[in-house]
Amino acid sequence: MRGFGVIEKGKVGWMEKPDPVCGPRDAIARPVAIAPCSSDVHSAYELEGDHLINRILGHECIGEIIEVGSEVKDFKVGDRVIIPAVTPTWEHPDIQDGYHQHAGGPCYGINFSSYEDGTFADKIKIRSVDMNAALLPDDISLEAASMIPDMMTTGFHGPELAEVKFGDTVLVAGIGPVGLMAVAGSKLMGAGQLIAIGSRPNCVELAKEYGATHIVNYRDGDIAEQIMEITNGKGVDAAIIAGGDVDTFYKCIAVTKPGGNIANLNVFTEIPSFNIPIDAILALTGHKTIKGGLCPGGRKRMERLLALVQANRVDPGKLITHKFDGFEAIEEAFYLMVDKPRDLIKPLVFID
Amino acid sequence: MRGFGVIEKGKVGWMEKPDPVCGPRDAIARPVAIAPCSSDVHSAYELEGDHLINRILGHECIGEIIEVGSEVKDFKVGDRVIIPAVTPTWEHPDIQDGYHQHAGGPCYGINFSSYEDGTFADKIKIRSVDMNAALLPDDISLEAASMIPDMMTTGFHGPELAEVKFGDTVLVAGIGPVGLMAVAGSKLMGAGQLIAIGSRPNCVELAKEYGATHIVNYRDGDIAEQIMEITNGKGVDAAIIAGGDVDTFYKCIAVTKPGGNIANLNVFTEIPSFNIPIDAILALTGHKTIKGGLCPGGRKRMERLLALVQANRVDPGKLITHKFDGFEAIEEAFYLMVDKPRDLIKPLVFID
Amino acid sequence: MRGFGVIEKGKVGWMEKPDPVCGPRDAIARPVAIAPCSSDVHSAYELEGDHLINRILGHECIGEIIEVGSEVKDFKVGDRVIIPAVTPTWEHPDIQDGYHQHAGGPCYGINFSSYEDGTFADKIKIRSVDMNAALLPDDISLEAASMIPDMMTTGFHGPELAEVKFGDTVLVAGIGPVGLMAVAGSKLMGAGQLIAIGSRPNCVELAKEYGATHIVNYRDGDIAEQIMEITNGKGVDAAIIAGGDVDTFYKCIAVTKPGGNIANLNVFTEIPSFNIPIDAILALTGHKTIKGGLCPGGRKRMERLLALVQANRVDPGKLITHKFDGFEAIEEAFYLMVDKPRDLIKPLVFID
Amino acid sequence: MRGFGVIEKGKVGWMEKPDPVCGPRDAIARPVAIAPCSSDVHSAYELEGDHLINRILGHECIGEIIEVGSEVKDFKVGDRVIIPAVTPTWEHPDIQDGYHQHAGGPCYGINFSSYEDGTFADKIKIRSVDMNAALLPDDISLEAASMIPDMMTTGFHGPELAEVKFGDTVLVAGIGPVGLMAVAGSKLMGAGQLIAIGSRPNCVELAKEYGATHIVNYRDGDIAEQIMEITNGKGVDAAIIAGGDVDTFYKCIAVTKPGGNIANLNVFTEIPSFNIPIDAILALTGHKTIKGGLCPGGRKRMERLLALVQANRVDPGKLITHKFDGFEAIEEAFYLMVDKPRDLIKPLVFID
Repeated sequence: MRGFGVIEKGKVGWMEKPDPVCGPRDAIARPVAIAPCSSDVHSAYELEGDHLINRILGHECIGEIIEVGSEVKDFKVGDRVIIPAVTPTWEHPDIQDGYHQHAGGPCYGINFSSYEDGTFADKIKIRSVDMNAALLPDDISLEAASMIPDMMTTGFHGPELAEVKFGDTVLVAGIGPVGLMAVAGSKLMGAGQLIAIGSRPNCVELAKEYGATHIVNYRDGDIAEQIMEITNGKGVDAAIIAGGDVDTFYKCIAVTKPGGNIANLNVFTEIPSFNIPIDAILALTGHKTIKGGLCPGGRKRMERLLALVQANRVDPGKLITHKFDGFEAIEEAFYLMVDKPRDLIKPLVFID
Repeated sequence: MRGFGVIEKGKVGWMEKPDPVCGPRDAIARPVAIAPCSSDVHSAYELEGDHLINRILGHECIGEIIEVGSEVKDFKVGDRVIIPAVTPTWEHPDIQDGYHQHAGGPCYGINFSSYEDGTFADKIKIRSVDMNAALLPDDISLEAASMIPDMMTTGFHGPELAEVKFGDTVLVAGIGPVGLMAVAGSKLMGAGQLIAIGSRPNCVELAKEYGATHIVNYRDGDIAEQIMEITNGKGVDAAIIAGGDVDTFYKCIAVTKPGGNIANLNVFTEIPSFNIPIDAILALTGHKTIKGGLCPGGRKRMERLLALVQANRVDPGKLITHKFDGFEAIEEAFYLMVDKPRDLIKPLVFID
Repeated sequence: MRGFGVIEKGKVGWMEKPDPVCGPRDAIARPVAIAPCSSDVHSAYELEGDHLINRILGHECIGEIIEVGSEVKDFKVGDRVIIPAVTPTWEHPDIQDGYHQHAGGPCYGINFSSYEDGTFADKIKIRSVDMNAALLPDDISLEAASMIPDMMTTGFHGPELAEVKFGDTVLVAGIGPVGLMAVAGSKLMGAGQLIAIGSRPNCVELAKEYGATHIVNYRDGDIAEQIMEITNGKGVDAAIIAGGDVDTFYKCIAVTKPGGNIANLNVFTEIPSFNIPIDAILALTGHKTIKGGLCPGGRKRMERLLALVQANRVDPGKLITHKFDGFEAIEEAFYLMVDKPRDLIKPLVFID
Repeated sequence: MRGFGVIEKGKVGWMEKPDPVCGPRDAIARPVAIAPCSSDVHSAYELEGDHLINRILGHECIGEIIEVGSEVKDFKVGDRVIIPAVTPTWEHPDIQDGYHQHAGGPCYGINFSSYEDGTFADKIKIRSVDMNAALLPDDISLEAASMIPDMMTTGFHGPELAEVKFGDTVLVAGIGPVGLMAVAGSKLMGAGQLIAIGSRPNCVELAKEYGATHIVNYRDGDIAEQIMEITNGKGVDAAIIAGGDVDTFYKCIAVTKPGGNIANLNVFTEIPSFNIPIDAILALTGHKTIKGGLCPGGRKRMERLLALVQANRVDPGKLITHKFDGFEAIEEAFYLMVDKPRDLIKPLVFID
């Protein structure tokens, strides 16, 4: 097979590798729509290790099944499927403890481009396809569908972790694609006042469309002060961190009320520690809770998010700002993700 | 004071009573908008007891404060406030066990027109006003505001009890005003497929507007069969009962999946027992859970629901189909509730 | 293989059947200790269907592995293992919705003696052994270990369903082996006052040893009245139903406080419906919740319960009142379960 | 009244102050048994502020009521009562959001010796006595009862925050009086393996008696390594921090499994920040949750813990290692707390 990935740390390119082998419960798919992700850029230039040598990148993909294993029950050749970023090892006993993302080890659920080749390939292996893929209905656009595998499941995990309740005042820090989905998800879990921190015009616009009631821009002054003013000095019931640096993170903790949850979705890779100010966290006596975790994956999660899209609760396809055609365009789309122009939210590559 | 209520079982009318006494933490309000409720009709014609003799009815009201007690901190004369149907005795130790509705005894939280005179009066006592009332902002219509004290808090309690999660298939049986609010609330707790059972045209229309994706009409055949067809034989993740008779209730249990919650909001007054078929409930081995409970009340609940209205998450004012003017029109509005014309959802009486 | 089971409804006996086939993830075990269960008697004499013709009974067993499939990772020939009564199809997508007991259909998790042959056999197939079996440590007695697969997991599911909290007043109706384990489990989830309903002397004794603070005997008068007297008229925070008839069930509902959970573990097979008095359940307005479900199974559940036994939190081996030796004694032990002498709690058959 | 407290930062002594005024819902008590707490030492020597000038210390006390307000319903002169360390302002709307400890502001619930005079006095005001005090039954020792107001409610809050489940492996760091109660509470919430970190011989002994299955001593090597060895490299399901320095805290985070809760009960007063290593917390992608909060208080909490003591689930009186007689001995007991001899767990002063 042919794929685009990391050859060694800092060096990306196309590569030829042996075709994936389809196990009895697996399927092989060809890509139909592929979205590069900031994590692909991280994997290429920041992370390292043997597992990132000659490794095909990519984990956001809609595919068409071209081969199924002998024990597969629910899928057949020709089916179009949503392939989640997180395809856990459901056959591991750890899943019985409730966190499929970490069955076998921390974050082992995200094996695409970590422990196995990713989706920037002309042949993609879907492990345990009955457990991990969701059939794509005809009435869902590829734009919307392709945001479900990672952006929507990650963003929606924000209000889940934050345990948003009816009428909560919710803060979402960062309105890139994950933050925007966190806004949409918070609205759909019952947020009242919904404050988003961001500055890029098209993101701000989309945040409002997805449900933000207030926008805080760091250029307008200290974000903590702005938030306290919006909330009449009370602070927020829940905070979701989907962008910004650690200082933003600490300020979000500070403006959260006693009893509130702070849910981190951000990937902090280049710091040795979280240096949480004791005052912000009330010396851990104030029932402020710090949480964070890799997005849920697997078939049912995809089907549940799909049900929301089908019911017109949210259109995640609006995240797509840049479109490309053809398999080879993965390279261009990847470099766009590296360059991050100011008007980029998410790129998508369509493959016939 | 003057009020409209039940003189004795089956006989309603106007009455004069001594003015309410304002305790140090209480407030007295005059009514600004009043909505009669089916429960008022129940209280007048079906229930009985000493507490329902010469008892002023009513528990859905927006008021203007005309007197405050000496220890009141957050309200003053002239404030317009949302008065919840449930004004619990927050000073009772039972509230420390988590159900303010039942502090002091089952459903004691709904003391309006039960243990104290109700809101169909020219002077209304709000007990512990700092704990029980919410300030009405200028930008909220009286129509919307007046649906918060009971219809919205009751309807939204449905998906709360049913513990609706992202992408759940949710069933709402009955789309009178409470069922319609249960539809809206289910959408705002993350329902995907949202099936409503009902037949009246304006209710069906509004159910769709509030988020229903499918309507089931009992005239089109067995409701259980229709629901199983919509769900491809899988059934629903959660069911909310807001109307229909006990047979509807049992069918809703039957179509709920193992592990699902069935949340009752309906008031069943004239049956001696729930005769739940053992097959419908899987002999209580299938983790189908039966729940039900009086709506939450108090100040924070009102403020939380208000936050949803202010954020344009839902407009409960659309429930109002019939409007009246002047205090004396309470009588006419009450009889409309008795007659229940086919196009009635909720009446509202405006009082200058 | 040779086994003892139901030949046709009402007729039990020994039978010869082809040896079970060990799939790549399965194991075959020989029995080391076997306990018959009331459910085996139900299956033999009350239930019917094609799946109960020439079906080997039994689902409580400690086994020694004699064969493992090619993909098995954590077990080898000679290992002694706890085999849970519930061995779910972990490879079914339904488990992603959280109830492994019902993956594939209601109660499909209990396939021993339902969908596959049971454990009253000289060769027992353990499906997906890495997911379903737990290694038995040397320091645990066979008596204690053999109560984990069903009695302990079922009994301990009572306080889990009832959501017992520190200091709750908990009621356990019925102190057969499941009820006794519900008593022990309630103590270990923080019950304060712990009222058990029962009358047989050795059960009463053991209930006290496991943590009951009060015993209610139906011979001493109405059980509801006795419970209300013990609780100073307040009722109980949570009720667990592990015995008695439907009338006992309804009385337990009645004495539960508003906001309390009623968790059913009892198997009601010969009634058409639960006819719950509207007063007992407060017309479903009082937040009394009715729950019930098949016990959790699988490897981690067994390991968790084993950890409690190893830590000396509870000794479930005390349930064993009658002991037998040799594979053929299964028959005698089964008939003991049919006859239910007054001093029987649980029998156990040891097999060299 | 006469009391012992902080005159100004670093200077303690006896003081005379005007008698407390008994409001209509309050009671005045005389002390019967008083326990000084490490927090009293913190307040005296480390904290500062106007509220700590001429402030009587103390918040762990059994009292006898000598006066009740006109609206008090459930208590009378002569009643012996448990007075909780946390006596919240139940009349504040914040309690409707679920954290009574923080009604009105962070940790405002602990007003004894913070916002009002404490219990080292001959006259103690109990605010809203019906909501805050619990009647002491005759069959409970003063030793046991006096540990309920703070040590037991704080320690038991550990496993509550950590959400301990049946069979969890639980770590408790620190086995002073709070840690010992966290051990006992963890056992009573279903902990299996229960690892306690500590070294003082009498604490180690008591930890085992309260349910610890393993003791880790920092003198025997790196605590994280010891814990990983005990757990076969798997780590713990939940960690409760009740002692040690921040390094201990970080190591406890590190040895917690993905999906586990780390619950802090420790008071960290002299550090500017928690500097949590990114590896220990898995960069907040591994669903490790950091929690912490002031203990629950109020009447029902005291009654619930009392129910556990009455049912012989735990004897917190074993914490008392040093006993004193007479009101004036408060001074000596306080200085004992300052000196912290190696064999001290808790002192108690009996007052006739």
